[in-house]
Amino acid sequence: MLVNRQRLFNRLAAQDLDAIIATAPENVTYLSGFWALPQWIRRGSQTFAVWPASGHEMPSIVTEASILDQIADQAVNAGSVHVYGECHTETVGCDLPNETDRRYAGLLRLPRFKNATNALSACLEQAGLTNGRIGIDESGLLLAQWTELSVAFPRVQWVPALDILRDVRAVKTQEEVRRLRKAARIAENSVDAALSIAKPGASEVELARALHVRTVLEDASPVLGCIGTGPRSALANVQPSNRLLQDGDVIRFDVGGRYRHYRADIARMAVLGKPSRELCRVHDALREGVRRGLEVLRPGLPVARLFDEIVGTVRRAGLQGYSRHHVGHGIGLDGYDRPLICADSRHVIEEGMVLCLETPHYEIGRWGLQAEEMVLVGAQDAELMTRSSGELISVAP
Amino acid sequence: MLVNRQRLFNRLAAQDLDAIIATAPENVTYLSGFWALPQWIRRGSQTFAVWPASGHEMPSIVTEASILDQIADQAVNAGSVHVYGECHTETVGCDLPNETDRRYAGLLRLPRFKNATNALSACLEQAGLTNGRIGIDESGLLLAQWTELSVAFPRVQWVPALDILRDVRAVKTQEEVRRLRKAARIAENSVDAALSIAKPGASEVELARALHVRTVLEDASPVLGCIGTGPRSALANVQPSNRLLQDGDVIRFDVGGRYRHYRADIARMAVLGKPSRELCRVHDALREGVRRGLEVLRPGLPVARLFDEIVGTVRRAGLQGYSRHHVGHGIGLDGYDRPLICADSRHVIEEGMVLCLETPHYEIGRWGLQAEEMVLVGAQDAELMTRSSGELISVAP
Repeated sequence: MLVNRQRLFNRLAAQDLDAIIATAPENVTYLSGFWALPQWIRRGSQTFAVWPASGHEMPSIVTEASILDQIADQAVNAGSVHVYGECHTETVGCDLPNETDRRYAGLLRLPRFKNATNALSACLEQAGLTNGRIGIDESGLLLAQWTELSVAFPRVQWVPALDILRDVRAVKTQEEVRRLRKAARIAENSVDAALSIAKPGASEVELARALHVRTVLEDASPVLGCIGTGPRSALANVQPSNRLLQDGDVIRFDVGGRYRHYRADIARMAVLGKPSRELCRVHDALREGVRRGLEVLRPGLPVARLFDEIVGTVRRAGLQGYSRHHVGHGIGLDGYDRPLICADSRHVIEEGMVLCLETPHYEIGRWGLQAEEMVLVGAQDAELMTRSSGELISVAP
Repeated sequence: MLVNRQRLFNRLAAQDLDAIIATAPENVTYLSGFWALPQWIRRGSQTFAVWPASGHEMPSIVTEASILDQIADQAVNAGSVHVYGECHTETVGCDLPNETDRRYAGLLRLPRFKNATNALSACLEQAGLTNGRIGIDESGLLLAQWTELSVAFPRVQWVPALDILRDVRAVKTQEEVRRLRKAARIAENSVDAALSIAKPGASEVELARALHVRTVLEDASPVLGCIGTGPRSALANVQPSNRLLQDGDVIRFDVGGRYRHYRADIARMAVLGKPSRELCRVHDALREGVRRGLEVLRPGLPVARLFDEIVGTVRRAGLQGYSRHHVGHGIGLDGYDRPLICADSRHVIEEGMVLCLETPHYEIGRWGLQAEEMVLVGAQDAELMTRSSGELISVAP
């Protein structure tokens, strides 16, 4: 179970909603556990999860006929499945020895609606959701569908609900934490693999290959792969180039893959050869900011206060003019979950949040350094989710 | 240059549009060449490309301050750049020896708008686009932004333009074809790598690792990775499991990564040991459909006719009841570009289209087989973009 049910139903009650409908891939997977391939890797494919506020143990699914095998194979627990579109598949006999195949064959016998809006409408009617207030994740709907739904359900008050879902997703469940911890470890191991081939003459692209191969070998997918060497380390979103490593170069990694749909995002810094005093001093100051963030993190802490603590610490540690828009963010199914750790945040830290704390510092034309760790907020404090804590690594040239 | 300029401007003229605005990542990259990392890998980040219909050689970019390094590093050719949001970066002195860094420092000096809508509004005003008909890709806009734009530009007639952009993207430019060809070859090589470890006792997950490692080593990103063995090969969207290969198993690959933002999607079939007569017969029939599709493909051919030719050929080749909703689709920046090859298509084949021709056939509980090739439509005929043509491969057990 990925979804934080209690938090979801509290939010529905607070907003006086009779149901909530997820439409974007992250939110569908979050509510239902269903990972619908075409929705995640293409444009235009729609799968929805519909969860009434009362009397239902699980959401209903609205999806395409062509991916019913995935509902069967993932053993998705759905209150009902409403299917649209065409798909032709041969079933053989009735002696299917395998449970997945039997479920699949059963799903293929469901009635088919013409399109996603029709199937969603049937789902709502079956659930008695033909009036009242329904929250709908506006991020996965087409413009025309808003109109279609308004016409089809004139007595429903439609409420944009992306905000509610992002809010619910901010506090992770145990299963989410497990996946995020694994994703963080994979990212660390992937940096180690890249550094194992770092030497004068190796290119950023070669480091990236080593990084992503490790990610794949641990059953995650490469997503974020910023690797910059020398002056390129100062490019915030640097993509690997053919630049060759030279003695004395900074190597900045800001990386993380996706493990069972959950993202990682950590930074690791290395220097080819012996780092200068200035690099050590700056990197220590940046790490000190993250360390302080970890130290003060606890439920109830205002996020704006966390921001001040981190930025203030970096300044006191030696980078007097340090200035940032944000020094971290939540992470989960999306790379930036709530909260964003910025000065004007009105959010408050809660137990179960998983955060990236980050203090990057870029000097254009020279180098960029960055501390970034994934941390889990517990009942009274917070813990690092990675093994190491991001020292400046010296790679023998 | 990715964009098919002539086709774009023909479409703008035909629709009497004064400008077009791309908002979704595929369309922004397509129009401008700009690959904006956060837009591609996270939710909520917005970058737009704005192209007036007359008097402009290139589009303008609306983007976040935090990714200006990417515009500099990718040497994006933009008529103007309108920047929103906050970002703090140290620049040092004025003696930046590197061209990328100089561009970056220059971009950081641009004025900053408060949010994406404000920056877009400023861009439109600068371009004199305060009335007339403006096409806007509705797929990357938030609901609230429609309202904001309507209020800010009461004299503009806003026209949803996703459809136009998808139509333009259907006919590929030379650079797009180069990337797609490379992506197709990488997919083939990746299947070869997976098959090189196929033996009794190897798992689907192990095959997937070998597949994706090869993709990564060729500088592409894993995206589509359906690998099913034995009865699991009949699951259309099968995701790799821990099932172990057994003698006689079918191995179905429906796979393809992303190379320089362009997708691949091919199928390859293997059998561990000697394939049965039935498997050979069915696979030959499926391949015959794709072969016939390749044979009849030429500019001017109605897509519905292509569908009939492919399905009819599979039937005549021995699978009498063969029935499909579609037997292929365009491919490009998205996994399903236009056209969809289905019976009721009103599209017509054009030179420069890149298509996946596919004839899957699934027998639940037994096996699934599938022919799928990427092909390029030329001036008078079409060519296979892969090296091999998808024979049924027998892997020695």
